[in-house]
Amino acid sequence: DEVRCDEYMKIGVLGPEGTFSETAALLWLKRMKAENIANVERQYYDTIFDVSESLVRKEVDYGIVPIENSLEGSVGETLDLLLNKNKKGEMQIVGEVLVPIKICLLSRGSFAKIRTVVSHPHALAQCNRFIRERLQLRGVKVKSVDSTAGAAKLAQEIDAIAALASEEAAKKYNLSILAENVQDQESVTRFIVLSSSGSSTQPTGRDKTSVLIYLKDRPGALYDVLGEFAQRGINLTKLESRPSKRALGDYMFHIDCEGHIEDEEVKETLKAIERKVAMLKILGSYPMAISF
Amino acid sequence: DEVRCDEYMKIGVLGPEGTFSETAALLWLKRMKAENIANVERQYYDTIFDVSESLVRKEVDYGIVPIENSLEGSVGETLDLLLNKNKKGEMQIVGEVLVPIKICLLSRGSFAKIRTVVSHPHALAQCNRFIRERLQLRGVKVKSVDSTAGAAKLAQEIDAIAALASEEAAKKYNLSILAENVQDQESVTRFIVLSSSGSSTQPTGRDKTSVLIYLKDRPGALYDVLGEFAQRGINLTKLESRPSKRALGDYMFHIDCEGHIEDEEVKETLKAIERKVAMLKILGSYPMAISF
Repeated sequence: DEVRCDEYMKIGVLGPEGTFSETAALLWLKRMKAENIANVERQYYDTIFDVSESLVRKEVDYGIVPIENSLEGSVGETLDLLLNKNKKGEMQIVGEVLVPIKICLLSRGSFAKIRTVVSHPHALAQCNRFIRERLQLRGVKVKSVDSTAGAAKLAQEIDAIAALASEEAAKKYNLSILAENVQDQESVTRFIVLSSSGSSTQPTGRDKTSVLIYLKDRPGALYDVLGEFAQRGINLTKLESRPSKRALGDYMFHIDCEGHIEDEEVKETLKAIERKVAMLKILGSYPMAISF
Repeated sequence: DEVRCDEYMKIGVLGPEGTFSETAALLWLKRMKAENIANVERQYYDTIFDVSESLVRKEVDYGIVPIENSLEGSVGETLDLLLNKNKKGEMQIVGEVLVPIKICLLSRGSFAKIRTVVSHPHALAQCNRFIRERLQLRGVKVKSVDSTAGAAKLAQEIDAIAALASEEAAKKYNLSILAENVQDQESVTRFIVLSSSGSSTQPTGRDKTSVLIYLKDRPGALYDVLGEFAQRGINLTKLESRPSKRALGDYMFHIDCEGHIEDEEVKETLKAIERKVAMLKILGSYPMAISF
């Protein structure tokens, strides 16, 4: 058994400390640790764009970014970086992590003192009902900031500001939890782990493959592509359209399927699809996360 | 010829005055005017949610909301209201309007005085490069607000605040245009016009039909549905997945196809699809907008 404790790696995460991205990174690092890769340093970035830049410049070995939430849908910025920041296949998806999103109302002071509630726009959207019924009706204003942890930082500074953020942020920023689980509905965010080394992961028997395709402009083009998967009984776990940014109504498609690129059937399917489309980019094969 | 100048109608629009939603409303009203429906009063709402509520309560006859932008992709809130606020088919899509998004930097003072730039998150995202290279490098801070027109309102109040908003907002709020067309790339936003009367529009020969489907959970289900369109040579203009909000990886599909629900082939296709899916909701048939 090879012990790789001497390896030293860096992972780019959305900061500051206490974001749900950090929770995702910690979960993934636990898995890495099980593989004896212990020395992983977290490096914090302000935006998804900055994480992707750090990957392109090889400042970090890995980057972890949110790609979809079970209520809010896909994160457009992440879908776009898989195309735009990845022209030569500099990044590969090597893993995914699922994080249950439990949002709390955090403040330094009491509930009565709150004049403004702040959070990331996605967290605000997810707590829509709570904000309307419990805060706005009392005259509390709503402001969006760059991250849930950034919101907690603000709440740490000013009594009249409450943050919608994670339990972890409450600990980091020394805030009281005034209300727990205030999201309208339970939700889960899927994060992907990107590697800047270009190396892909080995098949585990329970894998997923992500591809990006740009169709030729003819009727039934998407139907034909899906037929290649259907014929071979390969299950799609996701199909998402994303503007090609060329014209309104012109889309790229992000497709996730079950199986690893080294599985014979997946390999065959993608070869057949490549002949039919204007562009096929393989984003990576990686072990499926355990779902909730 | 029946003249309907005596009809008095209300349309719900995202406010305040000077948003791109208002531009869309004005374009659509011009078309209505051509049909002699002149007395249409605009009513302003803060959010897409509020516009949809006003439709459900029949406070307005029409509502106009953004559904997708050629760079940013779909507006999740609008896709969701077509499902959630429309359980009994209270709303029908009766039209679409395309608005080219030309964003300007607006301020009361000079460029040198700007300390903060504010706008709607979508406008900020669309001016990413300009903000980085021309503003952030000079230490200008970025803040998001609820609308581009709301940003212009703020800029009207404070010298040190500049807004990213429309040319129309510059006029309304008496601001100087410091830079024009500052978006990274030209883009177009598609707005839909919703009617609360439940009545649909007559075929014009150049129509579009929007539907929402929820598939049965079995491999190849989407492929089968697309086959019904492909077999009859019906072109899809859009296919978008949206979380069902039941579990991660469980989606609804928004599909736009060419043709009117009263066209024989479209009618047949939808009948065939209805037998295959867990839910089919027809959102409306309406004249296609002229594209750019």
